[in-house]
Order: sequence, then C-alpha cells, then structure tokens
Amino acid sequence: MAKTEIELDFSKFDGLLPAIAQDHLTKEVLMVAFMNREAWEKTLETKEAHYWSRSRQVLWHKGGTSGNVQKVKEIRVDCDDDTVLLLVDQVGRAACHTGHVSCFHKILNKDGGLDVVGEPVFDPEEVYGK
Amino acid sequence: MAKTEIELDFSKFDGLLPAIAQDHLTKEVLMVAFMNREAWEKTLETKEAHYWSRSRQVLWHKGGTSGNVQKVKEIRVDCDDDTVLLLVDQVGRAACHTGHVSCFHKILNKDGGLDVVGEPVFDPEEVYGK
Repeated sequence: MAKTEIELDFSKFDGLLPAIAQDHLTKEVLMVAFMNREAWEKTLETKEAHYWSRSRQVLWHKGGTSGNVQKVKEIRVDCDDDTVLLLVDQVGRAACHTGHVSCFHKILNKDGGLDVVGEPVFDPEEVYGK
Repeated sequence: MAKTEIELDFSKFDGLLPAIAQDHLTKEVLMVAFMNREAWEKTLETKEAHYWSRSRQVLWHKGGTSGNVQKVKEIRVDCDDDTVLLLVDQVGRAACHTGHVSCFHKILNKDGGLDVVGEPVFDPEEVYGK
C-alpha cells in the first residue's frame, strides 16, 4: 500500500476520525477507535492498525505489546471521507482488552439489560498483567 | 425493547457517541453516525435508528423522509459503554445518500487511490430531489 493521495477529513473532531476494525473473514465488527493523521499514515505504511489513544494521548500500535496486532487486508473510506473501515486479520483472535473477540460482546436484552455473549479467548491478566 | 437501565458514556465527545449500523444478515458495515442521548432513547423506543445530525444539528430519523428506515434487530454495546453497534434491516437496501448499499463503497487501491465498488441501487436525485 503506497502512501495515498487521498485526503481524509480530520476536521470534525479536532484532528480525529473514527476507524472501525472488522474481521476480514467473519465480518464481525471488532472495535471502534480513533485515528489522527499520524495513526492513519502509520497504518498505511506498516499495514498494521494504528490508532490515537484518547485516554493516554499517544499513538497506539494496536497489539504492539501483546503481539495481537491487526493486519490490514483492506481499507475502505466512507462517502464523506471522514470515517475509515479496516478489514483486518486479528492476530490472537481477540481484539478486546477483556479477552473477548469483539469489544461489542454485550447485547441489549428484552428487559433493557445487557447480556455478555461468548467467552474470553485469553485471560487479560496473563496478557496485560494485573 | 424496554427502556434500558444501562448507562452509556456520552461524555467523550460533548454528548455524542459513535453508532455503527451493520446489516444483520450480510454483516456489511453500512454507515457510522453519532447519537446523543435523545437519539439513543428514540432508537430504543421506536426500534428504528435515530442519530444526531452534526451538520444540521437536529435529531435525525434515518430514512424518515425517504422511507428507507433502519429496523433495529439487535443492539450491542462495547466494553467501555461509549460506542453502540446496531444490527439492522435496511429498508430499500441502500444506507448511503449516494444510493450505494454502504457508505463504505470506496476501497483503497494499490496505487493509493480509491476505487468505487458496486453500483448505486437507487438514484439519489429521485429520492432526495436535486
């Protein structure tokens, strides 16, 4: 993937835009995070997903510590050029810090509560420490 | 879907959080928009997707004018309670104002440009006027 000539619109949230990671095979939505221009360029350059960590205010190479990186298979850009969709191969299967495959593992039930679906595929304490 | 007791975190973007609409059958990601608390409550109440239009600064009942509403089949909430995923039945098939099924109909190619994939399923001029 060469450096792109396309111009994304980073203006709507003070230099950030939403990025969705979707499993390229199962089509499961894994997570949503935010990119600044640097994260976008690093993602293009390395073909691994990089985001901007809003909580830590740093460039975040997803899986950089644990090895559970997201290998980018395809990038889609939306009609307004202000959101990107990454089709990824999630190394280690789980994208979520809880050990679940997807961050979206809570489903609204009929009583208005949330049910957790599925089991974690790794123990977060083993991967990230206590 | 009863009024939920769960508390979403609307604090990170001045009262807004990202919402992804995904086709409940094909798993195609259709669009990303933003919800404020009112849009979230309207979505729960009506079982049709409501968003907050950032450009028009109004509550936006998706498809309210054209009839191409998004019937919500399932709602997922992420690990941080700050993003929602709607599994929807997209009436009229196309979610995008361009007439394409998905807003993410532009794919980054090897030369760093964007290729449009697929054909619009409706003519936007007919649906929205010129």
